[in-house]
Amino acid sequence: MSYRAPVEEMAFTLRHVAGLDAVLTQGGHEMAPEDVTAILDEAGKLANGVIAPLNRAGDRHGATLQDGAVTTAPGWREAYRAFVDGGWNGLGATPEHGGQGLPHLMAAACTEMWNGANLSFGLCPLLTAGGIEALTAHGSADLKARYLGKLVSGEWTATMNLTEPQAGSDLALLRSRAEPIGDGRYRIVGSKIYITYGEHDLTDNIVHLVLARLKDAPAGTRGISLFLVPKVLPDGTRNDLRCSGLEHKLGIHASPTCSMAFGDAGGAIGWLIGEENRGLACMFTMMNSARLNVGLQGVGVAEAAYQHALAYARDRRQGRAPGAPETSAIVAHADVQRMLLTMKASTAAARGICYLTAQALDAADGPEGRAAFERASLLTPVAKAFATDIANEVTSLGVQVHGGMGFIEETGAAQLMRDARILGIYEGTNGIQAIDLVTRKLPLSGGATARAQIATMRRVAEGLLKDGSPGFGHAAARLRDGVCSLDRATSFLLTTLGSNHPDAALAGAAPYLRLFGLVQGAACLAQAGLASSAVLKAGDTDPACGARIALARFFTENLLPAAGGLEQAVIDGGAFVEDAAAVLAG
Amino acid sequence: MSYRAPVEEMAFTLRHVAGLDAVLTQGGHEMAPEDVTAILDEAGKLANGVIAPLNRAGDRHGATLQDGAVTTAPGWREAYRAFVDGGWNGLGATPEHGGQGLPHLMAAACTEMWNGANLSFGLCPLLTAGGIEALTAHGSADLKARYLGKLVSGEWTATMNLTEPQAGSDLALLRSRAEPIGDGRYRIVGSKIYITYGEHDLTDNIVHLVLARLKDAPAGTRGISLFLVPKVLPDGTRNDLRCSGLEHKLGIHASPTCSMAFGDAGGAIGWLIGEENRGLACMFTMMNSARLNVGLQGVGVAEAAYQHALAYARDRRQGRAPGAPETSAIVAHADVQRMLLTMKASTAAARGICYLTAQALDAADGPEGRAAFERASLLTPVAKAFATDIANEVTSLGVQVHGGMGFIEETGAAQLMRDARILGIYEGTNGIQAIDLVTRKLPLSGGATARAQIATMRRVAEGLLKDGSPGFGHAAARLRDGVCSLDRATSFLLTTLGSNHPDAALAGAAPYLRLFGLVQGAACLAQAGLASSAVLKAGDTDPACGARIALARFFTENLLPAAGGLEQAVIDGGAFVEDAAAVLAG
Repeated sequence: MSYRAPVEEMAFTLRHVAGLDAVLTQGGHEMAPEDVTAILDEAGKLANGVIAPLNRAGDRHGATLQDGAVTTAPGWREAYRAFVDGGWNGLGATPEHGGQGLPHLMAAACTEMWNGANLSFGLCPLLTAGGIEALTAHGSADLKARYLGKLVSGEWTATMNLTEPQAGSDLALLRSRAEPIGDGRYRIVGSKIYITYGEHDLTDNIVHLVLARLKDAPAGTRGISLFLVPKVLPDGTRNDLRCSGLEHKLGIHASPTCSMAFGDAGGAIGWLIGEENRGLACMFTMMNSARLNVGLQGVGVAEAAYQHALAYARDRRQGRAPGAPETSAIVAHADVQRMLLTMKASTAAARGICYLTAQALDAADGPEGRAAFERASLLTPVAKAFATDIANEVTSLGVQVHGGMGFIEETGAAQLMRDARILGIYEGTNGIQAIDLVTRKLPLSGGATARAQIATMRRVAEGLLKDGSPGFGHAAARLRDGVCSLDRATSFLLTTLGSNHPDAALAGAAPYLRLFGLVQGAACLAQAGLASSAVLKAGDTDPACGARIALARFFTENLLPAAGGLEQAVIDGGAFVEDAAAVLAG
Repeated sequence: MSYRAPVEEMAFTLRHVAGLDAVLTQGGHEMAPEDVTAILDEAGKLANGVIAPLNRAGDRHGATLQDGAVTTAPGWREAYRAFVDGGWNGLGATPEHGGQGLPHLMAAACTEMWNGANLSFGLCPLLTAGGIEALTAHGSADLKARYLGKLVSGEWTATMNLTEPQAGSDLALLRSRAEPIGDGRYRIVGSKIYITYGEHDLTDNIVHLVLARLKDAPAGTRGISLFLVPKVLPDGTRNDLRCSGLEHKLGIHASPTCSMAFGDAGGAIGWLIGEENRGLACMFTMMNSARLNVGLQGVGVAEAAYQHALAYARDRRQGRAPGAPETSAIVAHADVQRMLLTMKASTAAARGICYLTAQALDAADGPEGRAAFERASLLTPVAKAFATDIANEVTSLGVQVHGGMGFIEETGAAQLMRDARILGIYEGTNGIQAIDLVTRKLPLSGGATARAQIATMRRVAEGLLKDGSPGFGHAAARLRDGVCSLDRATSFLLTTLGSNHPDAALAGAAPYLRLFGLVQGAACLAQAGLASSAVLKAGDTDPACGARIALARFFTENLLPAAGGLEQAVIDGGAFVEDAAAVLAG
């Protein structure tokens, strides 16, 4: 199993779908297209040559726990060292703390690569990136000075300690406690589960960001505070916290998923991040960054599954394609082509959505400001859930392309499917993302944020009509139909949210998110196709351009037509909430 | 994880969707409704109490190979003994050879139970059932006398030896050889892979059905013969065959998947089944039976995943449902309800299709004869592929309902997803099923078989309109729309098959099969709903009846609307076969 970062496609998507050039100009980055390609090429070398080769062995070895110490899989330490030495950890962080200060958009492309190469490995810096964001936005000057530099360099890593056995999606049920002990310090006591890289041997220190309740804090989510709790205290002594167990998981075996015990010996020492009882807001800074990055994990693993299946389909000979003189490689069979094109097109669509989201984050720092920030907020749940849903589908198709071999672990296709399965669950399940999209993001600016985004999709459909290249087939009509479905479903939900039956909006949340992702993804592929058509019309003959047009056609003609059914489910399907209790009682 | 065979729902589906009463009358079975329930209850006791409890430990222990001998997981031998002693192995076989002679329809329900309880266990008798069918249809009197009785009783088991490393879906590439040695005996030499229960410790003998080529046989599939090759020869000596390895698989760990070596010491002794070079036709007898049974495996594991997820959703408390005074069980949340209803409705739809297929097999033995046989032929690929596709979806949703717990192996939800993943691959991948449906089954009787089946679905839609119960919501209109989509897609494919571009039909095969399954499944649920409505109108108040109406509504309003998009993909989506090579070259 060998992963190659699809640098050319990534660069094309960055420029022609997500508007990288404008982002660079606006951000004052002096970077020529060659510089962009050079960075992506270098990242690709590390991903392909150092990180990807560890993926299979990492699955077999996993991480191990002994006497409270976690040992990562063979090669992990060396790869992490190479990653940090290359300066990749702080790609998007501000130069003030030692980061490279590159746009979110460039960081997004690199995140896709690390995770396409190896989800278990990619998770570690993903968590650190979230910690950097939370600390940058909410940490005191003192905490920043002490921790930010080493997190940006990657000398230390960060974790998110949210979940407790009784508190998963519902953080209001948190029980971990914190008590001030003067000097701005707190004692933290509690148990956390599902802590990714909660303990490991990659670095000398680990910076835990921990949600806990102060004594007398209000009940529910308004009584939760966020603390920085380092494994090793500033004076060099070990803090009162330990890894009490590792989970036995379906996938990402090489990523240690820890149960953490804080304060067995009286209390772990921690420092408040942000204000007391405002911890959830701080954690959301971290979560939003992590949600986009989890979407990028989905893109990465889907790309890896596509490459893996394509290589097999080119090699495996079975049956004779119509008109073929002898046994064909299975890539020549229409049904296998449909599977591979579905994989490729779904991955490209999800990539487009994730990059658009990163672009909105970059634009939010510029003159577009609040509108761009709201766009990023709107797109984040779509990027997270759509990209990870298709990651499940694409990795499962990867198994299917392999036939019986796909079910045999040695092939590697099954690992990608097992690894991908967590993506739709962690950092807020995809059901939570759908509820977030419908109840919190659609209402932004009275619905204007969503309307504006839908208008950009409609303009792409109009562009297809104007372009008129026969290679697009029915793409223009299909995209127009899809946009109309999304538009009507959006109107329905906005009306319903304001009614006395908000349940009907919740009932339609999941199909609505899928609908949004499908149409937005189709618009991204069509945009790439239009840019390619312009290149061809200008006299160039790059075969990749023809392929992009064909891919847009495939997606709009074969996958996007699901939009109509999803619209019906959103608008007419919600009656089940009245009957569900009776049906599920049986 | 505890599975309960859903006996009441099964009995209702058998009677009101699949017409069990007529099958019993026609077959001359003197069986009152109570007798049917009694049989299902007894089977359910064995499935729930004996077979299901082994499922988790079987996953952990797996089967082991040492010195050519395979040891099954703890408890397997005892459970198999109980299964055989109860007479369950020969349920559908003719009394002439010791079988119970029950209709396919009853056997189908029991097959669903064994596999709902434990896929790895259920596979063993599933293979034996296929062997019994092939031997009954094509074996010589002598072979039948020697082997059929012991296969029917379960004293011995049977296997299918088709696949070789270079010959999976394409059996034309088979290399195993056979040579006559007089006395009607043959020497068999070759290597087979993926042989389910190819070796085990459940019985003293194993009857291998092996595809091989005679010397000078024509190339391709017209030169393949089928042989019966027992592990132990009639004189009590070991035959020249052995298990040379066990696969390390994604799932069904307790089912030994063997590499088999025939003839290491000169040749395994075998006897011809059917005529020389006609082995594939004999094997298809076995495969068709196995395909329906694999569909039933899908129904069983989907049911198990639904029950498992529902139990968790009733127990797990997170978040507050709208209007709830305190933290709710997650089953009260609309998004979780949508997942659970999707699981339940998809499972019930697949059950309906599989039972309809079994009913057609029963009817084929009666006055309906050929038309029913063609209906069974038409429905078999749909039953196999649709039921196993939804098994993947339902078991994955089962993981999702569990949230983070779903990714932890201890919960059991992940095992069901891993186990189910093989179902869409073995006994002909679901892509092969789709091609079979479109290229061989649609053309039966010039398309009349398919048309007649679609007409039955249309009558159900008319029945909904006539019934008029408000509980059905938009079901009548949705089902009518779905039937129209299926009808148009069918016309398109029949026309295209006769054209110069049969590739376009192959390109649309997979979405067409899904479309067929969705509409047929919806018709089954609607039929169950109509029968329930009649019960309610007659004054009964069984809450299960209201639940069936609501489930039909859910399926038609939320899942069936995908039909329109699938129709578009079939009719307008096939252009990709022209572009695929270029797009996949990149």
